[in-house]
Amino acid sequence: MPQSLPISFLSDFGLDDEFVGVVHGVIARIAPDVHVIDITHGVPRGDVRAGALSLMRAVQYMPEGVALAVVDPGVGTQRRPIAAETPWGFFVGPDNGLLSPAAAIVGGSIRAVTLENPELILPSAGATFDGRDRFAPAAAVLASGQASLDELGQAVAPDDLMPLVLPLPETKDGAVEGEAWWVDTFGNVQLNVGPDELREIGISEGDSIDVVVGALKRRAVWVRSYGEVEQGSPLVHVDSAGMLALAVREGSAAEYFIVRSGSSVVLRKP
Amino acid sequence: MPQSLPISFLSDFGLDDEFVGVVHGVIARIAPDVHVIDITHGVPRGDVRAGALSLMRAVQYMPEGVALAVVDPGVGTQRRPIAAETPWGFFVGPDNGLLSPAAAIVGGSIRAVTLENPELILPSAGATFDGRDRFAPAAAVLASGQASLDELGQAVAPDDLMPLVLPLPETKDGAVEGEAWWVDTFGNVQLNVGPDELREIGISEGDSIDVVVGALKRRAVWVRSYGEVEQGSPLVHVDSAGMLALAVREGSAAEYFIVRSGSSVVLRKP
Amino acid sequence: MPQSLPISFLSDFGLDDEFVGVVHGVIARIAPDVHVIDITHGVPRGDVRAGALSLMRAVQYMPEGVALAVVDPGVGTQRRPIAAETPWGFFVGPDNGLLSPAAAIVGGSIRAVTLENPELILPSAGATFDGRDRFAPAAAVLASGQASLDELGQAVAPDDLMPLVLPLPETKDGAVEGEAWWVDTFGNVQLNVGPDELREIGISEGDSIDVVVGALKRRAVWVRSYGEVEQGSPLVHVDSAGMLALAVREGSAAEYFIVRSGSSVVLRKP
Repeated sequence: MPQSLPISFLSDFGLDDEFVGVVHGVIARIAPDVHVIDITHGVPRGDVRAGALSLMRAVQYMPEGVALAVVDPGVGTQRRPIAAETPWGFFVGPDNGLLSPAAAIVGGSIRAVTLENPELILPSAGATFDGRDRFAPAAAVLASGQASLDELGQAVAPDDLMPLVLPLPETKDGAVEGEAWWVDTFGNVQLNVGPDELREIGISEGDSIDVVVGALKRRAVWVRSYGEVEQGSPLVHVDSAGMLALAVREGSAAEYFIVRSGSSVVLRKP
Repeated sequence: MPQSLPISFLSDFGLDDEFVGVVHGVIARIAPDVHVIDITHGVPRGDVRAGALSLMRAVQYMPEGVALAVVDPGVGTQRRPIAAETPWGFFVGPDNGLLSPAAAIVGGSIRAVTLENPELILPSAGATFDGRDRFAPAAAVLASGQASLDELGQAVAPDDLMPLVLPLPETKDGAVEGEAWWVDTFGNVQLNVGPDELREIGISEGDSIDVVVGALKRRAVWVRSYGEVEQGSPLVHVDSAGMLALAVREGSAAEYFIVRSGSSVVLRKP
Repeated sequence: MPQSLPISFLSDFGLDDEFVGVVHGVIARIAPDVHVIDITHGVPRGDVRAGALSLMRAVQYMPEGVALAVVDPGVGTQRRPIAAETPWGFFVGPDNGLLSPAAAIVGGSIRAVTLENPELILPSAGATFDGRDRFAPAAAVLASGQASLDELGQAVAPDDLMPLVLPLPETKDGAVEGEAWWVDTFGNVQLNVGPDELREIGISEGDSIDVVVGALKRRAVWVRSYGEVEQGSPLVHVDSAGMLALAVREGSAAEYFIVRSGSSVVLRKP
């Protein structure tokens, strides 16, 4: 018997209800030996972009196998339930852009199908809970080798899958206009800006940077590590995902710079 | 060696402390090969009814084995610690009604015992933490086959186990008077009302319904899926557990209808 | 092949982001068969003492193996990343006192190393995320036997590891002056006071005790179990970790006594 693949599971279900447990249960009933790793279930409710970014950051650290992701504000509408194959493994979830950045970062979708095989959809006493009734069974049979991708449903051209439109930073007049795209639980603020964009406008590691959010301008130094500034002091650094981030040593950059996810953030030379 | 059974674990311990981890630890020390699935640990503190309903909704999706459930406001009093056997498997927890609806839905308790075997109770430096000292060891030995139900303690007649009294909806004057018995993390409101009760008063899928909560009356259409109403619009549907539920497409029904768990909800023809 | 050791994992990462999932992913990539148990990830952000106490309370209930603990406000500074061997197993984390009480309670560190082997540190696109890049790989290779402690880095004398200074209660003028060192999710308040300290000032189980917090004095009885007082009534008891704790039957002692973690609490005879 071939070794089964692990499943990495991300959602916006939260942990207050039994949703996550039930998905684990469905997988265990179909494929008892499959290892399921929870990436997070704390994606803000219905925030497809936040879920997509989280999955993209995480996927390269997860063991190759199946990524099961459900952030699905369009459940019960016409958006398609899909599974896609990439060089890393399989992605299972709604076709609403959630899977796209992660699939792209591991090499892109080679093949894809809509999840339409009635034998692999659990009956429901009422509305379909796609995470439980459709996505979990698909992930379980792919992980355990009980079905191939083709057996799950009709082929879809990978180019037809919905992409996720991510905002790009703009460089003009010696400033980079970016956006906060992740505020983590520590208050660190990841921007959609890489270190090269700052270098383009003549800012290097060690330089001071003016950080403008709305009417508020604050100054911070671009450092390599927290230890280079005093406790409570702000800093800009390249974070562990390779993007520029605002931080405060042993504090919250979200509070200091008054930023939340989606805020416009301008960086420029003082 | 026979295959061990999985344990499905539900509690109101929350995840901020080490309680859940310690229960996992105790199980792993006794039965290292047993797979433990967390259903949820977000049951509102001490809310036996909410825990019982969550376990009831989840159990049929969990792999057959052992259900370990601890919502136990009466810890340290005379309520009995028990284990019961059902056609689905074993239930372990306090005898306060928590286990009853789930056990009933999978066929009912066939045999039951109180957990009194001193060899299967961990010594404590102080007060007993029953989840850790009594329920976890019982679940672990049942799951791994290290002990039979009889070895855990004195037999109790299944009819003697505490039932959970669940409110039933009332139909009168062309209205169904029900109750909200679950508000999930998305703000969906499950009622203690099934679709047949609405049909009895002449309401069918596709009809408009007046939803009365306290002094507030709001109208919603009974639809099959979210996609049939506009974003932000309310709806009534049969949810994925087969019960009637109030919902708002990409919104919170709890906020829209001003309902919380336990609220009285009246449904009638406009 | 020798059986792998389980890893027990505690952090202040919370569950809203993918941090915990990514650490699980890194471990699974290196050591797919290792069982990882989450103790808790709800330690208050950066609160080394709270994390150390939680780990100390939990460790004796976790299966022998590897304890991976990350509460690390000094990340990116000079504090050392370490692994230590104890009679219970290995401890991996920052050398900031987090590991010390737990390591001491299971017999103390016998050998220790700093985590400096570049082959066991994941490359990062930016700042090092030590939990992911350094601690997780170390825990994974120790748990799976892929490396010995010596191979992880330079030896450190166990006596050189940073201890955690825990406040001791003081007994004077017939009173015990202690401190709240843990408020759990139920509002129970564990003190840094053991039952012997109360006995020293002539208070025994069954006696009334004046509990003074700031300007507020409230009286409670020292009982063995919750059932000995009325619902809503306060009590003092020896909790399941063997320490004195304030509690309210089916209520919150933190609210009743107006205490939070770190509050000074004086106990004396009425």
